[in-house]
Amino acid sequence: MNDMRDQFIKAMSSAGTTVYVVTTDGTAGQHGVTVSAMSSVSADMDDPTLLVCIHHLSPAADAIMENKAFAVNMLRSDQSQISNTFAGRIAEGDSKFDHVDWHKLETGVPILTDALVSFDCTLYQKERVGTHYIFIGGVVGIHHPEEGDALVYSKRSYGRFQQIA
Amino acid sequence: MNDMRDQFIKAMSSAGTTVYVVTTDGTAGQHGVTVSAMSSVSADMDDPTLLVCIHHLSPAADAIMENKAFAVNMLRSDQSQISNTFAGRIAEGDSKFDHVDWHKLETGVPILTDALVSFDCTLYQKERVGTHYIFIGGVVGIHHPEEGDALVYSKRSYGRFQQIA
Repeated sequence: MNDMRDQFIKAMSSAGTTVYVVTTDGTAGQHGVTVSAMSSVSADMDDPTLLVCIHHLSPAADAIMENKAFAVNMLRSDQSQISNTFAGRIAEGDSKFDHVDWHKLETGVPILTDALVSFDCTLYQKERVGTHYIFIGGVVGIHHPEEGDALVYSKRSYGRFQQIA
Repeated sequence: MNDMRDQFIKAMSSAGTTVYVVTTDGTAGQHGVTVSAMSSVSADMDDPTLLVCIHHLSPAADAIMENKAFAVNMLRSDQSQISNTFAGRIAEGDSKFDHVDWHKLETGVPILTDALVSFDCTLYQKERVGTHYIFIGGVVGIHHPEEGDALVYSKRSYGRFQQIA
């Protein structure tokens, strides 16, 4: 029992966070994982930068370090099923990518075709902090097919952004 | 004109991000700035960790590096005025902190009394990426007074999380 840990998780759950699927492919193979710990970093570089935090035991973390590329796919408000698919473990011989349409941009990692926005990134820097890696990506391609609402997670529920009138 | 930069900013604006005021105090003085680039990092350390990204030209960035402590205050959905106050420049002789109630926890930096949640942090690590610093904080205290809804920003508007039925 760690009181500070439990307090921290409970307090953080009050935030509304957009839901992303982070994907990678290359010599370490194809992996994907659902992530809400994502942030824009800097827009004013030659390549804009963003970051995602991924648990060090996730197979996707090792794969990103070897593949040196990843994509950050922002889910739409009606794609909670895709969030669940990439958050879960799957049966042997199955692939999470069988359940989605995807294509490639610059780096060759999977871009989810129906995502609201996808950022195609090369691995720019990584930092290990506690249980997680912070992966900083340089954005080399953006797939932004059309307008729509992002999938947001808060207080252990899925939802969307509602503007205050 | 930088097409990738403009595309990046537009694509990122589709996300829903919770609004925070990051505060600091110490030998470098009292500063506060509105930030939406925040993420949980690791819950399973002795001290849980989080990160915020702040522009290198913000007076708060220099102050956090010298003070070695900061707080991350999650705003409530009815506190867009506080977000605007800490996002803006202020008149000489005025202080952003005159407009809010605040107190201190462990580190001595300002905790906004009416925030939904406040994380009191010591500076654990910093990284400069492009125009921004990533400040990683070790959470040494949490102020979580009561339930409520967080202030969320998306598509250049304030709002809140709406659960999907």
